Amino acid sequence: VRLVGTHLDEAIVGALRERRFHPKLALEVPEGVTAFPNAELELALRGADALALGVSSAGVRWAAERLGPVLTRALPIAMVSKGLAFEADAFEALPDLFRSALPETLGADVSPVGIAGPCIAGELARRAPTAVVFTARALAAAEAWAELARTPYYQIWTSSDVSGVEACAALKNAYAMGMAFASGLNEKNGGSSGSIALHNYEAAVFAQSVWEMRRFVALVGGDPEQASWLPGVGDLNVTCNGGRTGRFGRLLGLGLTRDEASARMQGATLECLEILSTLREGLRTLEKLGRARGSDFPLAQHLAAVALDGEPVAMPFPRFFGSPIANTSGRT
Amino acid sequence: VRLVGTHLDEAIVGALRERRFHPKLALEVPEGVTAFPNAELELALRGADALALGVSSAGVRWAAERLGPVLTRALPIAMVSKGLAFEADAFEALPDLFRSALPETLGADVSPVGIAGPCIAGELARRAPTAVVFTARALAAAEAWAELARTPYYQIWTSSDVSGVEACAALKNAYAMGMAFASGLNEKNGGSSGSIALHNYEAAVFAQSVWEMRRFVALVGGDPEQASWLPGVGDLNVTCNGGRTGRFGRLLGLGLTRDEASARMQGATLECLEILSTLREGLRTLEKLGRARGSDFPLAQHLAAVALDGEPVAMPFPRFFGSPIANTSGRT
Repeated sequence: VRLVGTHLDEAIVGALRERRFHPKLALEVPEGVTAFPNAELELALRGADALALGVSSAGVRWAAERLGPVLTRALPIAMVSKGLAFEADAFEALPDLFRSALPETLGADVSPVGIAGPCIAGELARRAPTAVVFTARALAAAEAWAELARTPYYQIWTSSDVSGVEACAALKNAYAMGMAFASGLNEKNGGSSGSIALHNYEAAVFAQSVWEMRRFVALVGGDPEQASWLPGVGDLNVTCNGGRTGRFGRLLGLGLTRDEASARMQGATLECLEILSTLREGLRTLEKLGRARGSDFPLAQHLAAVALDGEPVAMPFPRFFGSPIANTSGRT
Repeated sequence: VRLVGTHLDEAIVGALRERRFHPKLALEVPEGVTAFPNAELELALRGADALALGVSSAGVRWAAERLGPVLTRALPIAMVSKGLAFEADAFEALPDLFRSALPETLGADVSPVGIAGPCIAGELARRAPTAVVFTARALAAAEAWAELARTPYYQIWTSSDVSGVEACAALKNAYAMGMAFASGLNEKNGGSSGSIALHNYEAAVFAQSVWEMRRFVALVGGDPEQASWLPGVGDLNVTCNGGRTGRFGRLLGLGLTRDEASARMQGATLECLEILSTLREGLRTLEKLGRARGSDFPLAQHLAAVALDGEPVAMPFPRFFGSPIANTSGRT
């Protein structure tokens, strides 16, 4: 296994070369793992059987442009990047975006594999049981990569529904932020985590998240079922159990403004902001074209208003589940 | 509001009459709430507009038999009881069971309303935001009860899919037990809740729970979508955030036998055991009749083996999601 850093990873590559120690995972990597700086990419690719990309969503196009000239043949390529792109009036999955950014001759032979589902890296690195989905337009490509990666503790299912699987992988970051409002609001109200909390609130937001995910998956031409297994509910569940997005959502729930909350995150990458921004922009365009209804996504709209426009948290429960019930009762 | 206890609730009724204090919720009840002992049921019913039942699943038939002779007309009836019944080769929802146990003349005019979705009682009693589903064969009955119960903090959606909604309400208790295995296993392996945990494991079990719920709902003639909003994922999410079922599952994950774990629960009612027992018995019968496939429910089968037969926890990940993938790779 050869790990190649981007230009932003020089410190990690250095630590791995000197001590075989991964500073972010706080873990010694196994023998047989060698680290290379970005400048040595070509050397690292020599004789490689397959390629796995771990760049952030913003780096996907860069990675294709960096790899294009040095890839001498169409290797099996997997990627763990999560995100949404909206181009030419359509949402695009990152594996498709990556492929389209490769040189044409190469792209024709590659079916990039996206990886989705609940996977906290630190747990997988410690070989804790993990179940995920590998997805590629050509199912055989997903299966080939799964065959390489499968272990008793890393269970892999495969799917050719790239649009559906990848949509869930992206959206769960945005929705996890909303679920975390509950713990911030509870704390703001004087509650501690051990006291009566806002679990009912959190669970209602979870349910609405899945409801909107199913509709979004259908909108991008995927199978809504993706929202109801590993890529959707599974990944949403694990994302709520920790991570940056949850911390950020808790701060917003506490009543901090978007800018105050961002400042407290000390420069951590907040994928949820980028995803909410792309989601809102895309839905607005599609609604103008008559191809989507913004009212199908009241939660996503509120999350965008809070995280992007600095509006206060005020969960639109009465607009959940496609049904304005509470509005019509005259009692809210 | 008139609260009537069963014969098991004399202490609570006493506390409510003496101090307007609910000992289990640790809360003073509002003025206008009066408590009655079981012997005064008839008095309490006099002039009542509607009736809400809070008996456990085992008490549903008893409640119908107790109420039958004293109900002088068909009141709107709601019930929060959660459970599974299997009779005459079919799973039966509790509202249907209750109705069939009423005197025939009364049953013909009543469409009992089941209540499902994520609702921790202590939160609702403190008016924390809560979103639920009222379900009745006659949708108008669900809507009428919802109109009585709706408040700004208690959001109510309605559904006529009694079979689907109630199946989710019952199953979530069983599946929440399995999700709690993760924290017990983690503790057994020397981990604490703050350290690297088994969140990936828990999330995979969550996803498989939803997968099986969808299949079970279809089996009982409901709409699988019920598993993907409030009654399914919503209630499953909240049930994992606490409660008896989670504590019991954690003890099993720690490696305690079923009997040791039960002993530690100090006599707490474990609805999950009854539900798993009915579920297994019913699925076996339906499989013999060619109407169900046990292989659609590998997680439920394992949970029953652990909780009912005392087998050790060994999560059957490779049999999840209808696909024996890991078995075929030769690497597990």
